[in-house]
Amino acid sequence: MRLFLLPATFDRSSTLQLTGKDFNYLIKALRLKKGQELMGRDRDGGLWNLRIEKIEKASCILSVSPSEKLEEKTDALPQMRPLKPIVLYQCLPKGRKADEIIKKATEAGVQDIVLVKSRNCVADLEGKENSRLERYDAIVTEAIQQSGSVVPTKVHGVLPFKDIPADFSKRSEGLAHLGIVLHQVRLSENQSDLFSCLRGFDGITAIIVGPEGGLEEEECALLLNCGFKAVTLKTNILRCETASIYAIGAVQTILESCCQ
Amino acid sequence: MRLFLLPATFDRSSTLQLTGKDFNYLIKALRLKKGQELMGRDRDGGLWNLRIEKIEKASCILSVSPSEKLEEKTDALPQMRPLKPIVLYQCLPKGRKADEIIKKATEAGVQDIVLVKSRNCVADLEGKENSRLERYDAIVTEAIQQSGSVVPTKVHGVLPFKDIPADFSKRSEGLAHLGIVLHQVRLSENQSDLFSCLRGFDGITAIIVGPEGGLEEEECALLLNCGFKAVTLKTNILRCETASIYAIGAVQTILESCCQ
Repeated sequence: MRLFLLPATFDRSSTLQLTGKDFNYLIKALRLKKGQELMGRDRDGGLWNLRIEKIEKASCILSVSPSEKLEEKTDALPQMRPLKPIVLYQCLPKGRKADEIIKKATEAGVQDIVLVKSRNCVADLEGKENSRLERYDAIVTEAIQQSGSVVPTKVHGVLPFKDIPADFSKRSEGLAHLGIVLHQVRLSENQSDLFSCLRGFDGITAIIVGPEGGLEEEECALLLNCGFKAVTLKTNILRCETASIYAIGAVQTILESCCQ
Repeated sequence: MRLFLLPATFDRSSTLQLTGKDFNYLIKALRLKKGQELMGRDRDGGLWNLRIEKIEKASCILSVSPSEKLEEKTDALPQMRPLKPIVLYQCLPKGRKADEIIKKATEAGVQDIVLVKSRNCVADLEGKENSRLERYDAIVTEAIQQSGSVVPTKVHGVLPFKDIPADFSKRSEGLAHLGIVLHQVRLSENQSDLFSCLRGFDGITAIIVGPEGGLEEEECALLLNCGFKAVTLKTNILRCETASIYAIGAVQTILESCCQ
């Protein structure tokens, strides 16, 4: 069932004007047309029949009537069923690369992005952590609006590498959990591939991506000793900003596939 | 079996000095150490035992001796077994986004990147096609060196959208072929997901990614009538520069998985 989450300002009146991100989302991104109907849900969980009555340059008018039951009106909206939770542990990359990684991971609906300080990190946020996290929050907000993501992505950091197992165990409380360490070299003979690791898994998945210089073997060993799985992607050696979204695409596609 | 492709200048002498991209690849990217052995292949297919004897700031010295047979010396090198061929049909995005898409697709070993002009493309290369393709070639060369890719990626364009089926059929001559149209809205009731489409497929795969405004329904219909499959990624609505590498990650991971 696909639903449009009504804005917090919705006052249950019979017409609703949408501007800004909601307008962009329905009219620009989903390209809904005048006359099209959709289902809405208000912030208290109430259901509403919506119909697009008028489209202007930067706003649109919807007619609104209460609905008794869920009906499939359009499959253009993303499913409200949340995506399976993914946590990205991203070792701090150089320069503005973190911006790009955070933007793409947010679009794809990653739940938590934890910035990590590992041995080979050249970048350092010391002293500017707060201002940087503020910038990342702005990037996340924009990416959520643009992608219509229903996942409230959060950026956290900066976490020392050795604290990843404790952090992930805190985040996965009560859920099945699986941590995937991406490494460009096979770390053991009997290492599984991504597909075998994830096939049929239903829980919270962590993806650990190293910085430009990669992860040290001891760093990998620390995670593997805590039950994380090392995976070598079946591709060339990717830059860290490519590896993260490549891996998110692969992980999410396997996790969300119905035909396992 | 993992092999290092020896430079074209290799003259079969017993020591070999590597600089530039080869040095960066072995020492910086793969972080091989002094004393480590690896197998090499020359441009005529001959096999060589290599050993890293000395590492300096911007070069390294290898000792070289002929080898009778293939031996697994290091699994740090990517496999010479080529990746299954992928063709990316990328509708022209705005501004510098094409640079980023081409760079990431090349790293991941996409064989051909075909730039396409579709209905909603805002960008236009008319009159500057040659100079732009030159820039793209430079991006590809750099990305191949950095990623140690064994796939000789090529960028082509600009192709009118309607010519995609003919172009793909030319590129897939004699091979099983499968075209995947990424679309943010399900186009039919019984549409397969990416996983079911690709599972066990062994041939050449095309991925078609729309421009910022997406593909028009008629454009999708044109491809579907030619046997292409529409797929809706099980995620939020991605920007085109995110969708391409996300999809490449998903497609390649499924194609290269041994455990299907």
